[in-house]
Amino acid sequence: MAHGVETSFSRLLHYILSASSSLDLCVFSFSNMDLSRAVVLLHERGTTVRVLTDRDYSAITGSQIGVLLKAGICVRRDMSSVLMHHKFAVVDSRLLITGSLNWTLTAVQGNMENIVITEEPDLVQPFIAEFQRLWVVNDPARFYQNQ
Amino acid sequence: MAHGVETSFSRLLHYILSASSSLDLCVFSFSNMDLSRAVVLLHERGTTVRVLTDRDYSAITGSQIGVLLKAGICVRRDMSSVLMHHKFAVVDSRLLITGSLNWTLTAVQGNMENIVITEEPDLVQPFIAEFQRLWVVNDPARFYQNQ
Repeated sequence: MAHGVETSFSRLLHYILSASSSLDLCVFSFSNMDLSRAVVLLHERGTTVRVLTDRDYSAITGSQIGVLLKAGICVRRDMSSVLMHHKFAVVDSRLLITGSLNWTLTAVQGNMENIVITEEPDLVQPFIAEFQRLWVVNDPARFYQNQ
Repeated sequence: MAHGVETSFSRLLHYILSASSSLDLCVFSFSNMDLSRAVVLLHERGTTVRVLTDRDYSAITGSQIGVLLKAGICVRRDMSSVLMHHKFAVVDSRLLITGSLNWTLTAVQGNMENIVITEEPDLVQPFIAEFQRLWVVNDPARFYQNQ
């Protein structure tokens, strides 16, 4: 990316990096290194980062989930048998970033994709509630307790 | 689906079927028969329906694109080499329906998915503009003229 040139992707990065207290990320596939670096940077800054991802896709070649785990970020993988097909982030429990874009290189550089960014509470709240529900449901401790 | 029981899917159908003048649909994969029936019904009612879809995915098993074409609905396939990964609809140039959901049976019945429905002009207008751009770019007549 050329320096000083604003693109859709640089705007997306800007909104992600604007997180000061928390970033809740729920994404099907995460292999984009620029986005991975941004998430690790937030974590290093002290922002509470929680990542929820699809179990099967977290293991594909190029997946950044291992990088996030090594950085100490809290990651939970969807334990259900169905696809976790969401691709959204909630910044500071206030700003919703959602759309068709998986956090992959192909999606960012190749495909035609869309991202909606909004602070409208009626739109943001259901995503906050769904993230919390999925986060609790996929707590590994629930599974260990049942063994 | 049980009669009289409101589900996320019945609400989605309700919003699609609320179209009175136009439905612009831009969807990567379209194999869901309930959604196909809804779109054909709108067309039969006199609603102007335009469908933009990915060229490669329009030919997969179970694709409803052939059904829409036979019903007389105007369909354009993305001519570029990259994936048309959008999944949005604009109802009456006013209401935006967008999210992670492809118009497939698996997406509706199996996966964890989200749909945002909004009339907020700041969110709706970019989708209207992008639909119009993609519609013109993928006009088959442009290709025939260049041959």
